[in-house]
Amino acid sequence: MANLDLMRELSIPTPSKIAMLVIDGLGGLAGPDGLSELESARLPNLDQLAAEGICGVIQHVLPGITPGSGPGHLALFGYDPLTYDIGRGVLEALGIGFDLQPGDLAARGNFCSVDAQGRITDRRAGRIPTELNVELCKLLREIRLEGVEVFVEPVQDYRFALVLRGSGLSEGLTETDPQREGMEPLPVQARSPDAERAAALANQFVQQARAALRGQHPANMVLLRGFSTLPSLPSFSEVYRMRAAGIAIYPMYRGLAKLTGMTVHQGGKDIHEEMALAGRLWQDYDFFYVHFKRADSAGEDGNFDAKVQALEEVDAALPALRALRPDVLIVTGDHATPSVLKAHSWHPVPLALHTPWRYPDGVRAFSERDCREGDLGRFAATDVMPLAMAHAMKLVKFGA
Amino acid sequence: MANLDLMRELSIPTPSKIAMLVIDGLGGLAGPDGLSELESARLPNLDQLAAEGICGVIQHVLPGITPGSGPGHLALFGYDPLTYDIGRGVLEALGIGFDLQPGDLAARGNFCSVDAQGRITDRRAGRIPTELNVELCKLLREIRLEGVEVFVEPVQDYRFALVLRGSGLSEGLTETDPQREGMEPLPVQARSPDAERAAALANQFVQQARAALRGQHPANMVLLRGFSTLPSLPSFSEVYRMRAAGIAIYPMYRGLAKLTGMTVHQGGKDIHEEMALAGRLWQDYDFFYVHFKRADSAGEDGNFDAKVQALEEVDAALPALRALRPDVLIVTGDHATPSVLKAHSWHPVPLALHTPWRYPDGVRAFSERDCREGDLGRFAATDVMPLAMAHAMKLVKFGA
Repeated sequence: MANLDLMRELSIPTPSKIAMLVIDGLGGLAGPDGLSELESARLPNLDQLAAEGICGVIQHVLPGITPGSGPGHLALFGYDPLTYDIGRGVLEALGIGFDLQPGDLAARGNFCSVDAQGRITDRRAGRIPTELNVELCKLLREIRLEGVEVFVEPVQDYRFALVLRGSGLSEGLTETDPQREGMEPLPVQARSPDAERAAALANQFVQQARAALRGQHPANMVLLRGFSTLPSLPSFSEVYRMRAAGIAIYPMYRGLAKLTGMTVHQGGKDIHEEMALAGRLWQDYDFFYVHFKRADSAGEDGNFDAKVQALEEVDAALPALRALRPDVLIVTGDHATPSVLKAHSWHPVPLALHTPWRYPDGVRAFSERDCREGDLGRFAATDVMPLAMAHAMKLVKFGA
Repeated sequence: MANLDLMRELSIPTPSKIAMLVIDGLGGLAGPDGLSELESARLPNLDQLAAEGICGVIQHVLPGITPGSGPGHLALFGYDPLTYDIGRGVLEALGIGFDLQPGDLAARGNFCSVDAQGRITDRRAGRIPTELNVELCKLLREIRLEGVEVFVEPVQDYRFALVLRGSGLSEGLTETDPQREGMEPLPVQARSPDAERAAALANQFVQQARAALRGQHPANMVLLRGFSTLPSLPSFSEVYRMRAAGIAIYPMYRGLAKLTGMTVHQGGKDIHEEMALAGRLWQDYDFFYVHFKRADSAGEDGNFDAKVQALEEVDAALPALRALRPDVLIVTGDHATPSVLKAHSWHPVPLALHTPWRYPDGVRAFSERDCREGDLGRFAATDVMPLAMAHAMKLVKFGA
């Protein structure tokens, strides 16, 4: 039986509350002096949490697999990311706060450069600035397709989101990006008969986009990838029998929470405002997901010191969350983002879980190395919610 | 391939013997002075076993999932409890030593109170004493149903077991207990067409029970839950190619062993008698499951000191089992029962495995914290039997 089915069977509503603070990109690798970002930062509150709770390190997908933000978060919420797939198009739309509806077909778009023969000379159109992207998207919004609404939304640089809204749009489509230069964009093909109509519409969009962008070199063509519709996820609230709030500053993370059926709230301008918001909402929900972004951004930038600083910022905000006295408090991340890699990585991510029902595990600091020695050891991120539920006394026993 | 299939493929009969001592409810949490029951008890023999063997902690179902006695034991015997489900009705019948036959349909019954309109006013009939339960069961035994034998057996307080014996009785039935007061009992419904007959018989039983109990307020009605038939488990002896004995004082644990096809023996009045019985049976079997109950009972009562005492009692009995010189001796539990929780819990359970084929792991005491640091680390209870088989040299290698 899958985790979620078991949770659905065993969960009971109780007054206890669970808070999960997700530090995006938590977990790194040693910098110049041999210490990781977590080990270099001064983190009195996180260290105290680690000492008073139980610790471990989590793996979001499988050993060696680097999670994207979607799979990383789904796993934390208890959804096996290998079962529940979020397409790139959907994620791109969620990332800009587009209000995707069930049945919408979303794709990730790139502006690209093509030569007179239509062959791709730059898959990213010379990384045009976002301002130009905004103007070009206005041109693309003039495209009309029969029986569907067309949305074209700028994302950043050369990237945009395309959403087709109508009935019967299947996501079973191939991509137009040949993944290398010197070739023409590929036609969209249906992977199954029920996707024929969506394929035809996507190809009409590409054809009209080519016409609309003629003369706009370097951004004189588009590439479309990751055609996808909103996945149908079991409802978080129904599975765990909790009223759940998602608090995040960036749209993508609110979008991921919304996918699971959480009620989402714009977090304000920084982690302190997010914590204050959690406080104001405290009586209205049983589960709080709070997202902190800056650690990941700093890691992606390869800025070790900025990541250290971001960790110290979230540490300073932690007491406000603890002051709300959640019955179970979890602090962890959706994936590692080591500054030295300037990217997400596959390394297990530290986790601390605060609960009264624990064996003291001797961990005294919140870091990759310390948490690994904790009571929870190394475990799957999809087990975080079952453990949180157990410690919050929200599960009945399995079998008699 | 599932564990059991692999075991069936690789097991060979040998003269070596395996003994598994199951301390029910083993594993706890810190009491007032910061030590768990195991850490508070004086356990010279268990500590010696831990020091001479290899240790770990086991999880019976999944992280955060609290096992009932059924799933806990099945996992120890190598049966994935998520695959092999034992219904509540079956467990209730096993618990009173009822000789369930294949095809018998068992349910857990409650006497309850209903008002003049038939609405439930007390789901437990004011927790009537067992003596009254016995008398009321005599009334229910008068019920006649066409084509099936009816057995009604008192369990305790307001609980009884109902068993229908006949052919073609499917367990796919809904329960009559609406789980709250103010409602009438629900009719039994068939979950699939093949359960229609069983549903009709169950409803006839309820109808006749209502008539038989009229005037017996507070126990003037029944609720039926957990309709189930004996699960069909692969035979322990066939899978592992061992003659297996189950020794337990309480019927439920003999029942669980019997489900796997072990030959069961009533253990006598205490753990010392169980050990003596194992000695007398030593030549007749290759595998011995010995069950010790008192640690769980004390934990369920929330009696920390009684649980310490129970652990000391089983410790004192251990030398008798060691004196039989099993090639592999395992001491572990079917689930944790921390006294502070007064209930089963999800916490991993200590295990010590005595074998010559080990790396000394430095563990010196048999406790939750010490065993976690052992060679076996944290692992799934369904892996206990494969490890025991390996250490007893009863498995050939996998693949060429």
